[in-house]
Amino acid sequence: MDEHIRRRRFCRQSVLLGTGLVLSGAGRTRAVAPGNEPSANGTLETIGRLRTIHGNFTDQAIPESDLQTILDATVRAANASNMQTYSIIVVKDRAKMQAVCGYQASCLLVYCVDHNRLKALAQSLDHPYHPGNMVSFITSGINTILAVQTAAIAARSLGLDYLITNGLHRGDMRRQWGLLDLPEEHCYPLIALLLGYPTQEPAHKKGRLSGAGVIHHEKYQPLTPEQAAEITKQYDDPNSHLALIDNWKDQGHKHYLDWLFTAWLRGSETPTERETQMFTLLKRSGYVEPQAG
Amino acid sequence: MDEHIRRRRFCRQSVLLGTGLVLSGAGRTRAVAPGNEPSANGTLETIGRLRTIHGNFTDQAIPESDLQTILDATVRAANASNMQTYSIIVVKDRAKMQAVCGYQASCLLVYCVDHNRLKALAQSLDHPYHPGNMVSFITSGINTILAVQTAAIAARSLGLDYLITNGLHRGDMRRQWGLLDLPEEHCYPLIALLLGYPTQEPAHKKGRLSGAGVIHHEKYQPLTPEQAAEITKQYDDPNSHLALIDNWKDQGHKHYLDWLFTAWLRGSETPTERETQMFTLLKRSGYVEPQAG
Repeated sequence: MDEHIRRRRFCRQSVLLGTGLVLSGAGRTRAVAPGNEPSANGTLETIGRLRTIHGNFTDQAIPESDLQTILDATVRAANASNMQTYSIIVVKDRAKMQAVCGYQASCLLVYCVDHNRLKALAQSLDHPYHPGNMVSFITSGINTILAVQTAAIAARSLGLDYLITNGLHRGDMRRQWGLLDLPEEHCYPLIALLLGYPTQEPAHKKGRLSGAGVIHHEKYQPLTPEQAAEITKQYDDPNSHLALIDNWKDQGHKHYLDWLFTAWLRGSETPTERETQMFTLLKRSGYVEPQAG
Repeated sequence: MDEHIRRRRFCRQSVLLGTGLVLSGAGRTRAVAPGNEPSANGTLETIGRLRTIHGNFTDQAIPESDLQTILDATVRAANASNMQTYSIIVVKDRAKMQAVCGYQASCLLVYCVDHNRLKALAQSLDHPYHPGNMVSFITSGINTILAVQTAAIAARSLGLDYLITNGLHRGDMRRQWGLLDLPEEHCYPLIALLLGYPTQEPAHKKGRLSGAGVIHHEKYQPLTPEQAAEITKQYDDPNSHLALIDNWKDQGHKHYLDWLFTAWLRGSETPTERETQMFTLLKRSGYVEPQAG
């Protein structure tokens, strides 16, 4: 390994986890501040270092051996009936990356729900095979995303950074079929995983809610007004790092969630064209059974 | 920690990976035999040890501290706009576990796509919020499953075993709403993660396909007849451990895939009641926008 790369990676792997604090509202709601996760072993330490880089990757290529390690790791995820009903498109062409998901990095892995390998195998042995229903889509979506997170964790353990983005679904999503030569039927591009090196260390990791409203015991417990107020407060606390932006107050909002629900999220009940398109394309892909009521 | 538990866990963590071999068909198709994955670091080693236990868990409870570590780890997964649009129901009542997913272990985590916490927060601040469309379901499903795999990997690093099962969707799926008090709207039980200790070590880990048909470069490449024949051969190889059962030959099949497509999978094009129900319940949950064509 090149000395420069070795140094870079050593530095990256040595980033301190910070201290942070656990916020606890009368034992009922709970925010895990970043860096405060247990790290009793190397795997938990890697999970504690998971973070998202938002499109600021350097031009540096990741080593081929790292990519192969990540691809070998990704398929280790559990999957229904060991049928691996997904396809992974490895994209290194940066212009194509940009067109596909709106970002560039050293490497892009496009994870698709895909039954076409199985269809080809069934056909080669002269058996019928009909994956065209919502169970197939959901089951394969689960297979696919379990594989994605395994790749992300493997990447992080190698000192790489990543972005998991639904940029595939922004804009006119039909472009994916053209750009990636996807089969029109029984294949659906689900998520993009970009791999690379960040241009700069993020200032902090995002915090997470973990407690009432997220973790339930024995049965679902709807949020009480007190818990809602407590969570609203947790989002407002700058030390929780739960917020997407820091300057929501400057934008005239009383609470971070006011910004989230009015400035970030669309308040309209009518779906956007993009939202409608995802379902329309699910239908075109053959995953919506016409028989269902 | 109790000495007995310590010993048990030490033994479990010391299980050898085995050797296995990489099968390669003219450099075009590739099966990763179990145990042959790289393990340059502890995280990759944990990923290399990922495996599924099929319902044979002991009565032993997992330590509360392990459960908490897993719950803290699971929320670290990336998620869209840091909105964590999922709920996790922790079930320890074994009769309920059995009713929910058809298995029992030390602990069951039911992962649901869920927008009701966000709905309650929006309502408490008097903002509109309308998650009722397919984009919401798919985006949240991705958030949810990224969290599941993080939990599974964390559990494995602690010497625990797991089963990720879609047992939730077997039988009449409507029971989940009753058993777990799930909100009828904008909540959908997606997958079950059982945690515990296996009654016996599995004889081997499953192998995986990794190569043509799974990994594509720059664009999707449909399987050629030669690749299909090669993959069929790989499934037939007992050393690849790709097959779900070992005795498919005794059952009169020429190839393992003959068994898969005729005995394991249903050949009919008409969806079963269960398949139709999943989509019907997606509609009832409000995730299928009526406006979509």
